[in-house]
This record gives sequence, C-alpha cells and structure tokens, in this order.
Amino acid sequence: MKRNLITNALSLFAAMAALMCAVIPALSADNKSNVTRPDPLPSWNDGPAKQAIVDFVRVTTDQASPKFVPPEERIATFDQDGTQWVEHPIYTQVVYCLDRVPALVAEKPELKDVEPFNTVLSGDHEAIDKLTLPELEKILFATLAGMTADEFHAEVKKWITTAKHPRYDRLYTELVYQPMLEVMQYLRTNGYKTYIVTGGGQDFVRVYAEKVYGIPPEQVVGSALGTKYGYDKDGKPTITKEPELLLNDNDAGKPEGIHLMIGRRPHAAFGNSTGDQQMLEYTKAGDGERLSMLVLHDDAGREYAYGPAQGLPDTKVGPSPRRSTMRQKGMAGSSSA
Amino acid sequence: MKRNLITNALSLFAAMAALMCAVIPALSADNKSNVTRPDPLPSWNDGPAKQAIVDFVRVTTDQASPKFVPPEERIATFDQDGTQWVEHPIYTQVVYCLDRVPALVAEKPELKDVEPFNTVLSGDHEAIDKLTLPELEKILFATLAGMTADEFHAEVKKWITTAKHPRYDRLYTELVYQPMLEVMQYLRTNGYKTYIVTGGGQDFVRVYAEKVYGIPPEQVVGSALGTKYGYDKDGKPTITKEPELLLNDNDAGKPEGIHLMIGRRPHAAFGNSTGDQQMLEYTKAGDGERLSMLVLHDDAGREYAYGPAQGLPDTKVGPSPRRSTMRQKGMAGSSSA
Repeated sequence: MKRNLITNALSLFAAMAALMCAVIPALSADNKSNVTRPDPLPSWNDGPAKQAIVDFVRVTTDQASPKFVPPEERIATFDQDGTQWVEHPIYTQVVYCLDRVPALVAEKPELKDVEPFNTVLSGDHEAIDKLTLPELEKILFATLAGMTADEFHAEVKKWITTAKHPRYDRLYTELVYQPMLEVMQYLRTNGYKTYIVTGGGQDFVRVYAEKVYGIPPEQVVGSALGTKYGYDKDGKPTITKEPELLLNDNDAGKPEGIHLMIGRRPHAAFGNSTGDQQMLEYTKAGDGERLSMLVLHDDAGREYAYGPAQGLPDTKVGPSPRRSTMRQKGMAGSSSA
Repeated sequence: MKRNLITNALSLFAAMAALMCAVIPALSADNKSNVTRPDPLPSWNDGPAKQAIVDFVRVTTDQASPKFVPPEERIATFDQDGTQWVEHPIYTQVVYCLDRVPALVAEKPELKDVEPFNTVLSGDHEAIDKLTLPELEKILFATLAGMTADEFHAEVKKWITTAKHPRYDRLYTELVYQPMLEVMQYLRTNGYKTYIVTGGGQDFVRVYAEKVYGIPPEQVVGSALGTKYGYDKDGKPTITKEPELLLNDNDAGKPEGIHLMIGRRPHAAFGNSTGDQQMLEYTKAGDGERLSMLVLHDDAGREYAYGPAQGLPDTKVGPSPRRSTMRQKGMAGSSSA
C-alpha cells in the first residue's frame, strides 16, 4: 500500500539540471503564447518537470480556473539538503558540529580523551566517517545545545560566512541550486508563501535562510531542540538550547512539523529523498491541484550523481545521524516507477 | 529579582476601556498635528496607553528615526484569552471541551459512569466548577485528542459558529475587544506581522483566527498536542492528535514557543495575566524600541472587572487547568507598581 502511495504521490519528477550558482540570461521566449515575456525558470531545461511547475502556477492562480487557490492558502514547502543546496559529501550542519568540537573541548577539557570527541580531534577522516549513530548524536547534542539561542546564532553566523566546501572551495551558502532559487522566486511572485521544511536544525538554517533563499526565519521549519527560558546573571531573559529533541523534522516528522508550525497543508512540496516522502504524500493528498516534486541528482561533473534512480548509485551522505534511518533505500527509485 | 524584572518590563500599562463589538466613528482629529486624519485607534481613550502605542509605531517605522525597525523584523504578539476576547466566566475552549463530552460518551459509552465525565453529563454547574486539575486534564485530552486534525477542525468550526456565551447570548467570536482589533490592524498597516501567542490550543484558535482577528493559521502559536502521521483505511495520509502535550504555551512556554515558531523576538507584545509575564519580559529585553502592554479589565458593566490591580478582585477564570498554575496571584497588580 505504501509503495502505491509513493508512486501516486510522486507522479511528477524533476529531471533537473542542478546548476550551482550559474547565472543564465533572464530573458527567453515564452512558448505558451505569442507574447515574448521573461521565462520565470531560465535555468530549467524544457520538459515535463518545468511544464508541470508552470502549469501548476497557471491553474492555481487564475481566478477563472476551477483549480484556483486563494492567495492565503498558497503554501509551498522545500526540503533543504539535496533540494536547495549541496548535501555531499556530508551534511553542512554536521560539518559545523564537527568543526565546533575543538572549541567545545577547549571549554570542557574533560572531553579531550573521551570518545567520540577524541576521534574528531584526531582529524582522521576515515575514523570520523565510521562514527556510529549514538556517537554522532553525542556530538550533535554537545555542539548544538547548552548555550543560549543568541550565542548559537552568533556562532553559526561566524562559521557560515567563513567555512568552505572541500571540493568547491566556496562558502556553503554559495552552493545552492539556481533552478530551485528560480522556482521559489517564481512561486513567491505568484503569491505563494515559501517555507523550508528541513531535517536540519531550524535554528541553524534560520541564520542564513533569509539572505540565501529569501525565506524569513518564521518560515523555516526544521528539527528543533527543546529550549528553556531563564535569566542570565544580570537578570536578562535568555532562551537556552537543551540537549533533547523536541521535533525530528524528517519522514513523518515533516507533515507533523508542517501541521504544528504552519497549520495548513501545502499546495506544492519539493524534496529529494526518503526523508521527504511523507511531506510529498501529504501535500499530494490534499484537495484540488497539488504539486509534489523530487530533485534528481544526475550531474556528476558539476555536482554529484546519486540515486538510487535511473541506475545511479545510492551513495551515502555521511557522517550523519540521518544516514541509517532516513536514507536507507533512497526514495527517488520508487518515484520514477 | 523577578519582581523587578516584571515592573521594568511592564512599564506601560493599558488602561483600556474594553469595548466589545462597539462601532465607533472612524474619524476624529489627530491632536498630534494640524492635519486632520483618521485616528487609527478610535475606540481608545486618550491617555498614556494610547500615546505609547502611537509613539512606538512612529519611532519604529520612521526611517529617519534611530529606533527604526526594518519591516521584516516587525513582529507583534498577542495573548488571546482576556487580551483579544472575553475569558470570563470560563475559557471558551474549556466550554468547548465540556460541550463535547456528550458526543464523546456516545462514541465511548464506557465513559458514562466514569468520573469526571459523569459529573459533566450531570449538568451540575457547582460540581463541574469543583473539578480538580487532573480531572479537567482528563476531559481536555479526551475531547481534544484521538481524532484527526481534519475532524477536529470540522468539529470546532461547527461549534464556534453556533455556541453562545451565557451572559451575552452571542457567539464567542463576537465577544472580541474592539480596541485590540484596532491595535492589530494599526500595527499591520504599519508593516507589523501580528501573531497570537496563546495558552489555548493552537489547533482550536486557528479555526477562526483569520476571520475574527485577521491572523492566518501560520501566525497562531499556542499550546499543542503531539500528532502522529499515518494513513486511514483508504491509504490516505492523516494527522492524528495524540493525548500528550508537546508545547505548553504559557508562562516560560510563551517565549519558548515564540522562539520555536517565529524565531525572532517580538518588538511589541500584549497580554493580561501571569501567563504572559515571560513573553512581555522577553519582548522588552530586546535591543531598540520595544512595547509590552497589559490589558486591564475594569469595566464590570460592559464586560468583567478583575485584577488583582487597582483594587479589583482577583476573580477566578474557571474551570480551567490554567487556573491553579497560571493565575495564582494575578499579574496586573505588579505591573501597575
């Protein structure tokens, strides 16, 4: 039954050329009419994926259409890792956590000889890549919790504006997918409110989402630690991040997070992996016109090629706590059936 | 220390005439200039409370002001019960839960002779008013959980468009405070995004918030049960409400909820009770211009008069699970100090 649901839900498939940071001339002929106007998706190859998006926007925003969606109900959700920016070879936020370990150990020297912190400090990439899920969780909680929300924000801001991707030697925030930026902008231009719905931490993504994706903090839904309101030594109110997971915004957690944080079912959703399956199903199961799309990564030259789909290998994204639970079989394979 | 924080945080005090559903002529002379223009707050008496709001809007929206707030950071939060609509003699959502008991017992006849359901069925108001906190929690979880989000939405919608307040014989959604509607509209006109941040259930309030307050579901933050994503017998995705509290959006839970759901500190916050203390403190503690205000209920003729503040009695709002934890001492008293 679930398999059928997947194939029904994911009838559209984004065979998208993932152009990173490419600047493409913004004008081309619109072949749907005789009037020449700007192509809203200039980085997209012509084909069923692009057409599905354009058709979706047309029928949901034309008041004469039986599939018209009132502006206030126009919600579109986007996974982040692998959908909006590069997730290989390691999730960016996991790199952040690993990079934070030296500072953490400087604050808490007792961790220096304790696993898994000593493995991370060793810099032995092979050993780091073999860290187990509980070990990685220990690192994530230790580096993401125990400080105030303001301190965390400042730390991430500093890191994200300096750390660079090992392959491209560019800031992670430059490794976003131009075609997806265009889809988000196109939807916003047509009255859609765009949200990020990520398995990553929402406090992390909120630091740069407005600048990078044009998505404000209040439209970022993500995994979240619990927090504790209190007062600092000067009596000033603080919000402290606790080492407990309040919202695991993956798999079933995505529609649950959408219900909690948005309270409306999206009309369009975009993802790229098993962690997005339920969000795409949930979106597609709503009344009226709905769009659920998957990004396929098939460009090994300019990005990474992985599936499993269309014969591409099921490469691992690691080290990540999601790897073993979220990406077991890859989702793209079933969607292309 | 806490007491100091309160008095510092709540230096402004809304001595507001709580006019319910009053229609007041929309035009009056603006005494701040020689130009006659519409008064944005026609239902407010002239005085420091009204002036504080007008001054706040002026300095935060004037680009030449050192206190200018960029549009994307203009967040204003409002408690609901006692701040936007009547909370006496019983919180509206508690009335909903009590009203739901007969239908619940019809579905589950085994509850008929079980406390506290049999007390509610008896209709004995005196006995109902004496229900203990654990008994009330049992009723709330039983009537708010165990159904899908769609079913819950439909139930609340039916109830809220028919149930009437015992004193006024009017729909609860008509018992909103005209001055507060004006403040929300005034802030929105000036680029503020208005949010409800309520101890009430966010799924409940989201049903009517857009129509009644002009606040869309995604801008309602409230107490929330956990949910579970699954599939119905036809394989259709469902979100089911679970009998466990995920977010208790009262007291410290309010700034925690704001951090979780909005991710920005408000520049203005409005409340009326102890449950709002931390939200108002948190708001006021931010950099730049911040506005924290309390609604004072001092009009026994047209609404209810209660405090404790200005010699008004600390009347109970019951029966409610919040009564014993949230309203122990009343907040208004300390704010007027």
